[in-house]
Amino acid sequence: MGVFKIKVGIIGGSGYTGSELIKILLKHPHVDITYISANKYAGENISNLFPQFEGIIDYTFKKFNMDEAIKSADFFFTALPHGVGIEIVSGLVNAGKKVIDLSADFRLDDKKTYEDWYKKEHPGFDLIEKTVYGLSEIYKEKIQKAFLVANPGCYSTAILLGLFPLLKNKLIEKQIIVDAKSGISGAGRKVAQEYIYTKVNENFKAYSSFNHRHQPEIEQEINKFGKENIDFYFIPHLLPVDRGIMATIYSDLKDGVGYEEIETVYKTEYGKSRFVKILPNEPDIKSVRGSNYCHLSFNLSSDKKKIAVFSAIDNLVKGASGQAVQNMNIMLGMEENIGLKNIGLAP
Amino acid sequence: MGVFKIKVGIIGGSGYTGSELIKILLKHPHVDITYISANKYAGENISNLFPQFEGIIDYTFKKFNMDEAIKSADFFFTALPHGVGIEIVSGLVNAGKKVIDLSADFRLDDKKTYEDWYKKEHPGFDLIEKTVYGLSEIYKEKIQKAFLVANPGCYSTAILLGLFPLLKNKLIEKQIIVDAKSGISGAGRKVAQEYIYTKVNENFKAYSSFNHRHQPEIEQEINKFGKENIDFYFIPHLLPVDRGIMATIYSDLKDGVGYEEIETVYKTEYGKSRFVKILPNEPDIKSVRGSNYCHLSFNLSSDKKKIAVFSAIDNLVKGASGQAVQNMNIMLGMEENIGLKNIGLAP
Amino acid sequence: MGVFKIKVGIIGGSGYTGSELIKILLKHPHVDITYISANKYAGENISNLFPQFEGIIDYTFKKFNMDEAIKSADFFFTALPHGVGIEIVSGLVNAGKKVIDLSADFRLDDKKTYEDWYKKEHPGFDLIEKTVYGLSEIYKEKIQKAFLVANPGCYSTAILLGLFPLLKNKLIEKQIIVDAKSGISGAGRKVAQEYIYTKVNENFKAYSSFNHRHQPEIEQEINKFGKENIDFYFIPHLLPVDRGIMATIYSDLKDGVGYEEIETVYKTEYGKSRFVKILPNEPDIKSVRGSNYCHLSFNLSSDKKKIAVFSAIDNLVKGASGQAVQNMNIMLGMEENIGLKNIGLAP
Amino acid sequence: MGVFKIKVGIIGGSGYTGSELIKILLKHPHVDITYISANKYAGENISNLFPQFEGIIDYTFKKFNMDEAIKSADFFFTALPHGVGIEIVSGLVNAGKKVIDLSADFRLDDKKTYEDWYKKEHPGFDLIEKTVYGLSEIYKEKIQKAFLVANPGCYSTAILLGLFPLLKNKLIEKQIIVDAKSGISGAGRKVAQEYIYTKVNENFKAYSSFNHRHQPEIEQEINKFGKENIDFYFIPHLLPVDRGIMATIYSDLKDGVGYEEIETVYKTEYGKSRFVKILPNEPDIKSVRGSNYCHLSFNLSSDKKKIAVFSAIDNLVKGASGQAVQNMNIMLGMEENIGLKNIGLAP
Repeated sequence: MGVFKIKVGIIGGSGYTGSELIKILLKHPHVDITYISANKYAGENISNLFPQFEGIIDYTFKKFNMDEAIKSADFFFTALPHGVGIEIVSGLVNAGKKVIDLSADFRLDDKKTYEDWYKKEHPGFDLIEKTVYGLSEIYKEKIQKAFLVANPGCYSTAILLGLFPLLKNKLIEKQIIVDAKSGISGAGRKVAQEYIYTKVNENFKAYSSFNHRHQPEIEQEINKFGKENIDFYFIPHLLPVDRGIMATIYSDLKDGVGYEEIETVYKTEYGKSRFVKILPNEPDIKSVRGSNYCHLSFNLSSDKKKIAVFSAIDNLVKGASGQAVQNMNIMLGMEENIGLKNIGLAP
Repeated sequence: MGVFKIKVGIIGGSGYTGSELIKILLKHPHVDITYISANKYAGENISNLFPQFEGIIDYTFKKFNMDEAIKSADFFFTALPHGVGIEIVSGLVNAGKKVIDLSADFRLDDKKTYEDWYKKEHPGFDLIEKTVYGLSEIYKEKIQKAFLVANPGCYSTAILLGLFPLLKNKLIEKQIIVDAKSGISGAGRKVAQEYIYTKVNENFKAYSSFNHRHQPEIEQEINKFGKENIDFYFIPHLLPVDRGIMATIYSDLKDGVGYEEIETVYKTEYGKSRFVKILPNEPDIKSVRGSNYCHLSFNLSSDKKKIAVFSAIDNLVKGASGQAVQNMNIMLGMEENIGLKNIGLAP
Repeated sequence: MGVFKIKVGIIGGSGYTGSELIKILLKHPHVDITYISANKYAGENISNLFPQFEGIIDYTFKKFNMDEAIKSADFFFTALPHGVGIEIVSGLVNAGKKVIDLSADFRLDDKKTYEDWYKKEHPGFDLIEKTVYGLSEIYKEKIQKAFLVANPGCYSTAILLGLFPLLKNKLIEKQIIVDAKSGISGAGRKVAQEYIYTKVNENFKAYSSFNHRHQPEIEQEINKFGKENIDFYFIPHLLPVDRGIMATIYSDLKDGVGYEEIETVYKTEYGKSRFVKILPNEPDIKSVRGSNYCHLSFNLSSDKKKIAVFSAIDNLVKGASGQAVQNMNIMLGMEENIGLKNIGLAP
Repeated sequence: MGVFKIKVGIIGGSGYTGSELIKILLKHPHVDITYISANKYAGENISNLFPQFEGIIDYTFKKFNMDEAIKSADFFFTALPHGVGIEIVSGLVNAGKKVIDLSADFRLDDKKTYEDWYKKEHPGFDLIEKTVYGLSEIYKEKIQKAFLVANPGCYSTAILLGLFPLLKNKLIEKQIIVDAKSGISGAGRKVAQEYIYTKVNENFKAYSSFNHRHQPEIEQEINKFGKENIDFYFIPHLLPVDRGIMATIYSDLKDGVGYEEIETVYKTEYGKSRFVKILPNEPDIKSVRGSNYCHLSFNLSSDKKKIAVFSAIDNLVKGASGQAVQNMNIMLGMEENIGLKNIGLAP
């Protein structure tokens, strides 16, 4: 008797989250990739776009076709740009398939918030009620039973994993200021003036300051964690690296909260986690590169009024495709870390 | 009749601030570099260490000798590591020379603060009273009359230029949180495990969080600017670039302070500045690379409670040697920007 | 009486060679930039595209108009993509203006070679006879009298400066193999998949191997230098840096040619050169970054049969806009290095 | 019944080849790492040096002790600097252990050549006869029976894999010129002025030109492959990337050798190889980063006299620790690619 294998389809295989998914799933012992679509590159071999697959997988991207997709696979990852895959996700779910959606389309619970930030109607909002927000460490039990998982954004993952123990245990108050820094792959394979090498290399800048689209997603979860009135401010910056997010999270400690209590809280929440690790010193992004790990540490100001939490992930792995596979493992009742044992590539 | 020339000596010519000084001063029409010491490299030609000077300057580093220095030059830059040049500075000042010190030795007004942070006695603290803190744009009048200028730290320059208009005009309150990011040249030519290429490249991390030595220097100036009770928190990070500091400065706006008022205040304070420029969008560090410019912009949170100020400089130029030459120009009654007209090297 | 100033126009100001020209000429004491066109960005302020000019120059790009250009300036730089500026150059020359063309359009002497490599007719080939190939160090006397200068390509400059003394003095034979490496700015501001950060960063590859368009230009000059039968092979590679070309040039030494003879030849040819410097060890590209210098060194194989010459330049300066300004200085009878005294930006 | 596991010891665990070995072997299903020594860091936890292992392996480096080593493990990797591990290797082999040595100590067959290049006696040269040169694809049968494998150098691996089909099939003649480029991790974790970030970043240069220590190792193998008189020249360069070697190999084609013949030869030699892949276009180093693959392509000059072969590997994987594990797999009769299925990390 052979090893159990599930047929997996990937809708949107030509972006960086798509290629990262393929890379992870090719080594997953219980997965057969049976369908990959990429409309823009339909008919082209995957190795033309991504030479790292040369001689490893010989696959020609398909133009998406719902019937063919449904026949080909039982579990789907949709890795499409925001807004374009809503009907596809609906169709797959309605056909009884389990789906993990890596876009922002199903992350917001509130229709009006979605429309305010994305400036358009959401044609599949009825699915939202059945959707589970796929922050694996926090919502594991819900994910186990989910049919549709909205995979969290990369910034959201780094920030929420850093904040969760503090909010759940009511150790902070008033305000949260997040100064986040992301590698360029967070922008995907997009070809634009601002992402050409000569604009990014040896450079650094803030963007979308106080106005980034991950903000409502993060606020929504902060409110769920903490059920408290706390202001959230968020400024992302562009780092001249391929991969990696570092979120530096500032907040105000409640009176009397000290170092040991905080440490205990973090170790309690994440002590058994496969992927979230508490470090003694400030983490760096290179130590988690190419891996599904999240490295956390924290520090207090000398007046003990402020806490800074440092949260480092690989935006394409724990911040996207790795967490997606982690969610798949959870949904299928497998060990959470199958296929995700890569250790950070450093140097 | 020839052009006016002043004889300039550089004590500590083998570090990055030293080589940057030499580079700037070689093109300064009113400077003759007549003395360069570098004890560690005494007897070695400058082009061995810095091939960019090949065929441009043929100079052999000297071992420092006070008598020879005093005879050789009339104006001195001391670019030595913190703590080692105090007696040299005292000797030069006592011999009637004008001195700009690029170390941290003369920046702190308060003896106890110095001893707390540097864990040692300061053997030349009597000079402090005669020292002017060389933040060129803010203390120009004092610098004109100074004999000893303590050139500000790189982080301090970026942060203080960003904060000055807000503090002077009493627009902010409660707290200032600075999340700063610096290129590696801020650490100088130091050879250490943490600065080798494979540790820094494709990486990013915080260091000395809430505990960096520029903190008391910045607090001292904040208090002078604002004379108000405001908490200051500071976390620096290491950017994988050679040059550049980006300070993202968060603070709380006083009630009723709005965008236009802030804009007016910045334009009023810096409208005539040669080097501080207010940009419409978030600045980047590459646009000021190799130049003495400081690029500033600001943004408000959607609830109008917070302001973020972005301040970008080249840490070796406006953050060190460029500002030092600007101070020299001011001290000698020359145009502030002579020798400092380089435009940012981008790409 | 004021300083002598010439009115200069730049046709094509929105590319990297254009912005580099503006940067250099803004600091040139004998130049007034009176006209800058950039059709794609007509109506846009230069600081929108290049924030390094913020507060330094306030200029709105013009749509090119021949009459307006002719009225506005006396000396022109054309920095347009290959093939699109031939009529413009002809028009300016016919109107009696001196022109330096930075494209490849006027570099090839032979019409058929042009048509073979560029696959089209050349509508202004009658001008070729009056054109001087602007390799400043080699053709200085011709450039002095020229009305139209074809500014050499970046690879060509690095390679030809390295080879000239060997060929002129007949020290090498049989074959020349050039393995060249260029920073990405050589591709300009072009927005294409292959130039986005994530494709270039941490990467390296050959391209156009044995088939690069600079090949015929280099062969043409090699034949002029040496008048000998020697095979030329050329493979360029893409370096993950912004600026810099390193050409590693391999050739076969004639019998009996030794180290001292070669050294003498290099020192003789370049001993008085402002910009070409002979180094004792292998040069690096960072020491010439942002400068108009060319750093050369050479080495022999242990069997003394082969020579390797290393030639390093900044592709945007000595390889483009810097050499163009050097040529302008020569054409106008000025000191060759006016406006070009920048020392390499390292680190 | 459990899975077969072999006890493996690593001598020299604190360098980059050591940490890469640990990383690969931790995921190898048939390996238990039972011993890791690192004299310089004895007593320190591996996660202090390499935070990527945080929470994955909790091991304290040991000071090397022969008895303890022999008792702890059955198979050893020695990853020590050249020259210091010869006695250790001898001791382990004499104790009946299988050893793969990653240093240069056992790569040269000829004692005099060793002494000429390394300027010292070799205290264990009697072992050379029993040593197999571990170029996995070429010497697989010998490796299967070996007790001591000398793992090839990184440059040697890239160059020899590129040359083997041409030499074996006698398609080239006269000369081989290799212009090679390596990422900085090839220098290990060495702390030296030339490897600090500010010296390497945005830079590129040749080093040890015509005089690199891998030269005799490569020549030795070229002579074995080809048994012909062919001159070999080699110049390495330092690339501003962490990982990756690109060897551009130039040679002279014998009369009448054409594209199809060469293609056939490459496909014949490597058609069944797990790791060596023939690409249609020039390979890049990023597509093999973090993987054990070697990407090859070739091109002919327009006059069909020259061939250029491009060979890309990750210097720490196929160029060191990956090939070492591949050799272990071969020596233990396992599938060659167990533990080595990582696909290149791109972006």
